[in-house]
Amino acid sequence: MVSQVEPRSAPTLDSALQFAAAARTLASQLAPSATVVDAIPAALWPAVAVLCEKALRFDPAYGLWPDRDRFVVSSPRLLPLRQAFLRLAGRSEDESASTETTGELYGLAGGLAGQAVASATGMALGEKILARRFGHSLVNHRTWLIALSGDLYTGVALEAAILAGRFGLDRLTIIVAASDPQTMDGNAAEEDIGQMLGSFEASGWSTRRADASDTAAISAAITSSQRGRKPSLILCEAGSETPSTSVSVSPAALWDPTKSRGRAARRAWLRRLNHHAQRAEFERIISGRLTSGLDDDFNRGWTGQQWTENQSVNSAQTIIRAGLYGHTVLSGLLPEFTTLRTSNLRHPPSRRKTGPGVSKAGPLALGKSYVCGPREPAMVGMMNGLALHGGVIPCGMAPLHSVDRMRPALRFAALAKQRLICALIESDPDLGAGMWQQVEQLASLRAMPNLALFRPANAREAAAAWSSALAWRTGPSVIVFGRTSAPPCPADALDQRETDTIDGPGALSGPSRGGYIIEFPVQDHGKRDVTLIASGPEIAVARRAKALLDKEGLLVALVSLPCWELFTRQDHAYRAFVLGEAPRVAIEAASGFGWERWLGGGGVFIGTDEFDLASCFGALYQNFGITPEAIRDHVHDLLGTTRTAADPHGGLHH
Amino acid sequence: MVSQVEPRSAPTLDSALQFAAAARTLASQLAPSATVVDAIPAALWPAVAVLCEKALRFDPAYGLWPDRDRFVVSSPRLLPLRQAFLRLAGRSEDESASTETTGELYGLAGGLAGQAVASATGMALGEKILARRFGHSLVNHRTWLIALSGDLYTGVALEAAILAGRFGLDRLTIIVAASDPQTMDGNAAEEDIGQMLGSFEASGWSTRRADASDTAAISAAITSSQRGRKPSLILCEAGSETPSTSVSVSPAALWDPTKSRGRAARRAWLRRLNHHAQRAEFERIISGRLTSGLDDDFNRGWTGQQWTENQSVNSAQTIIRAGLYGHTVLSGLLPEFTTLRTSNLRHPPSRRKTGPGVSKAGPLALGKSYVCGPREPAMVGMMNGLALHGGVIPCGMAPLHSVDRMRPALRFAALAKQRLICALIESDPDLGAGMWQQVEQLASLRAMPNLALFRPANAREAAAAWSSALAWRTGPSVIVFGRTSAPPCPADALDQRETDTIDGPGALSGPSRGGYIIEFPVQDHGKRDVTLIASGPEIAVARRAKALLDKEGLLVALVSLPCWELFTRQDHAYRAFVLGEAPRVAIEAASGFGWERWLGGGGVFIGTDEFDLASCFGALYQNFGITPEAIRDHVHDLLGTTRTAADPHGGLHH
Repeated sequence: MVSQVEPRSAPTLDSALQFAAAARTLASQLAPSATVVDAIPAALWPAVAVLCEKALRFDPAYGLWPDRDRFVVSSPRLLPLRQAFLRLAGRSEDESASTETTGELYGLAGGLAGQAVASATGMALGEKILARRFGHSLVNHRTWLIALSGDLYTGVALEAAILAGRFGLDRLTIIVAASDPQTMDGNAAEEDIGQMLGSFEASGWSTRRADASDTAAISAAITSSQRGRKPSLILCEAGSETPSTSVSVSPAALWDPTKSRGRAARRAWLRRLNHHAQRAEFERIISGRLTSGLDDDFNRGWTGQQWTENQSVNSAQTIIRAGLYGHTVLSGLLPEFTTLRTSNLRHPPSRRKTGPGVSKAGPLALGKSYVCGPREPAMVGMMNGLALHGGVIPCGMAPLHSVDRMRPALRFAALAKQRLICALIESDPDLGAGMWQQVEQLASLRAMPNLALFRPANAREAAAAWSSALAWRTGPSVIVFGRTSAPPCPADALDQRETDTIDGPGALSGPSRGGYIIEFPVQDHGKRDVTLIASGPEIAVARRAKALLDKEGLLVALVSLPCWELFTRQDHAYRAFVLGEAPRVAIEAASGFGWERWLGGGGVFIGTDEFDLASCFGALYQNFGITPEAIRDHVHDLLGTTRTAADPHGGLHH
Repeated sequence: MVSQVEPRSAPTLDSALQFAAAARTLASQLAPSATVVDAIPAALWPAVAVLCEKALRFDPAYGLWPDRDRFVVSSPRLLPLRQAFLRLAGRSEDESASTETTGELYGLAGGLAGQAVASATGMALGEKILARRFGHSLVNHRTWLIALSGDLYTGVALEAAILAGRFGLDRLTIIVAASDPQTMDGNAAEEDIGQMLGSFEASGWSTRRADASDTAAISAAITSSQRGRKPSLILCEAGSETPSTSVSVSPAALWDPTKSRGRAARRAWLRRLNHHAQRAEFERIISGRLTSGLDDDFNRGWTGQQWTENQSVNSAQTIIRAGLYGHTVLSGLLPEFTTLRTSNLRHPPSRRKTGPGVSKAGPLALGKSYVCGPREPAMVGMMNGLALHGGVIPCGMAPLHSVDRMRPALRFAALAKQRLICALIESDPDLGAGMWQQVEQLASLRAMPNLALFRPANAREAAAAWSSALAWRTGPSVIVFGRTSAPPCPADALDQRETDTIDGPGALSGPSRGGYIIEFPVQDHGKRDVTLIASGPEIAVARRAKALLDKEGLLVALVSLPCWELFTRQDHAYRAFVLGEAPRVAIEAASGFGWERWLGGGGVFIGTDEFDLASCFGALYQNFGITPEAIRDHVHDLLGTTRTAADPHGGLHH
């Protein structure tokens, strides 16, 4: 394929080595120490120089041009390389730090080994989705990932490679160095490279090896990857020569071919955009604006007949059904809402029905979703790439018990402040999740900065969770749709006083504030004896405990706390009103780690800090002591009272 | 290779189908619902029947015989299959639940998709390690993993497959069903299978496809995997026929060939064991006993010249150096101590030196370690397999910033209560970890049941962390060796009063209790004004804050809290003595999530609940406000005092 090198390549190639040398020199000046630059594989400098000179579609004057090629590095170690080339192009340090910080620069580089491969795959998928929708006249770019060999040895990279092959992402190219000065084990590394190339080929990739000092070979490999119909991998092997350090051309001038190519491409693109029938819609999704009236349209979906009919089908799974229903409605209303899912989930029920999305965006059962199989690490990693690409709002659907497998990608989203929505469905305990328990996982998610965790307890809270997740733009959201066998709170029978009392009608609803009084004391004159706090499936148990205590004459408030992160952001007065001053009892079928902040002094947590493998799921609540009777007894211990059902009139305020 | 089927196969095969039918019938009786059994791929029943009849080395009367074949399933969904076959062999439910609960049964099955592949790989590595040490006369078994296709699609499985190929684990066989009734996406699955086989072959595996109803083909594939020199994968495709339900032989009798084979093998093995020169040592490691005098030998390593010499080399990295030194000493003293490591770590320094292990087990620089590359998910997953195999104490060494990648495997160890030790080294911020911050990760680890997290602050605590991790048998330990530029506390200059005061000399040392007073108030008459609490690198900052406050005349106790889990297990009196009744200030360069439990009412936490990408690592403490001066100011706010250095005599007790 060397014959594919373009005729003008011979004079250009020499300049590529000069380009590489200039970039490396600049990097040495910028970096805090020589070690940092020495840790960058030498083979990458000429390869990236050739890429910039011959292929990269990029206008330095408009760094965020939507149809630019994505040019990303896989590791913080490679940041000096990227920075050096961009500086030579005239991009200032400040500009790249401010506008691109969370995107192609820090975002990708801050991830763990292999994360960038998933992100780049997601970017290429984003390009494909937008190109399909708007045509190649508006969307016609590639994704170039400059990677370290170690990144490609990771499982998450292998998963992403499989999915890139499956989804036909032929506009994705990885340029990787065969050897890495940081890798100690030379023999193992060479074994790994052969194995890795084999795995990528088995996944439907085209792979090539090229000597990095042979810029003609690199150039041919790049051209081949542009013309091929597969995602491609270019392995650059360290040549015997280091790039020449004598630079005869002005370093900035080395960018001239790229710049003029990019400038011309962008101008032509602007002309096409101006006359494009979907221009307004394209600009809307690129700017990240939601469709106007979305909230109203979405909420309408929960009051009409559609949802009520849905709900009646199987009351034992109402939270899950509400979650899936919300997903279907959103998919119908927001064309940029894109779903990736594992294959382990059931299809959302009632596809035959239609809903509020129909009038705007076709039938409900739309929204092509991308099936990723049990590859949660790469799936959520790709969602980062979709979010970083822009124009797409990624939503992932997966079984709840796999949440730890998503953690590196979720953390990446939290670091890079990317909005992605993970809807996690509690699995059927009979079919694979019987030995899974969430003990510490809720705490682990709540502890992560910028992540919002939602545990809706009923349909109303499920709807609010979807809305809130969509509005949570500075990090990932995780919505847990629990499987509960207890009867749920009916969506339309909830007490509305929580908002009226504090803010008057029209304020944010309780569920949208992350915490609210879902049931007030029976006689509400502002006093309570105790506050029960729970979320998700435990609300049903706590309601039954409240009913027992009600009968005994106690004044019990039940607080639903579906989202700590939102509740924390409410003002002090609201939080104080909700939590009250009475002793508090929190209930969650999980670890109490972190719950101290809601308990006040002397509060009680009912849950479990241990796994209990002897519990099958059905008996979980019993074995953990999460029963209405146990909660009642804890309340009595806390208050120092010993009322029983036989003594129902001993309440404190009677 | 069909020609390899043994002559007696023809009559046996019919019985294999009967065996399969009997097991399936029994599973239906045992399982809570038909759905559970229907969810098991039909192709696995005859394949496992052939395995049991023809190959499995297993004596049902001695289920924990050390030289048995390991027979494991990859998912809770497959437990009914395993249970049915074992029940037919005469194993009672109770026995398998009690003795094997954490091992081959629940432990493996409770893991996430793909974890079992890593565990099985670890078991096969355990066999290889012990066979190399004791010879095939004592160690001569195989590992059989019965898997779902989805397990092999995961990145962690692909990583494990690569490592199985690299380490030449030819005694590992995976039997997997090609189709899975639980998988929805037929087309994707078929694509995946071809890709997956390609990846395994590229990783050095031998793969075979066989029709499950053709028991001769299954048998040939099993025989071939026993004779081959590679790890092997047998893909069982669903035959057109379901196993016959007419069982003409007594179900129990179907096990007779396996039982008599197993009984004979075990008796012969016992004879060889009785005459084996290393019998005592073999029995010691299988029973899990440590070498006698280990503690003394280990502690001696820290008082002698070796460590002191080591320490002086580079005082800026003393915690890391102490961690590596402890690892070297333990490796020398405990032959069963087996290290897996990524390739990103520097070699422990000072290999040329010798230490306390020399007299017993050769030079310090022994302990072959297994280099896994940046494949932490599979590496820690294999450590689970090593622990479950027995006879090996697995230790993993990896960079600290990859801890989230280990989380599924760590959780597996916590669930299955397996001892594994992860020594995590904080990376050089210049070389790849500059944008990594531990914000929520310490909380996430502390929240996990059965996991002990250690953050040693100096060499003495590092030594105690290694000892304590070795003694922490009911779950994983994570030891974080921080990189700190502050001068460490000298190991031998610490105040010993914390033990003397409460328990008298000879009691557990403070570091071994997880928390202790590392520096007492200057005038110790039992009173304090404030207690500072920190761990790891923050101890150095807190010491400087204490020095500032000392000068102002305040009575300040500094508590080091290297391990919450151990400290929580101390009795109330000890904890009350250490924490004191004065107001508390906790310092950690991480999230305060969960710290409320140590702060008491009104305590203050100094740390960060947010990422700060603008911090390069050097400025991290400053940007987070973790400086001696900031701590002093917080103490003043807390106490309502406004002392300055100019008013040094205003202490509360003077």
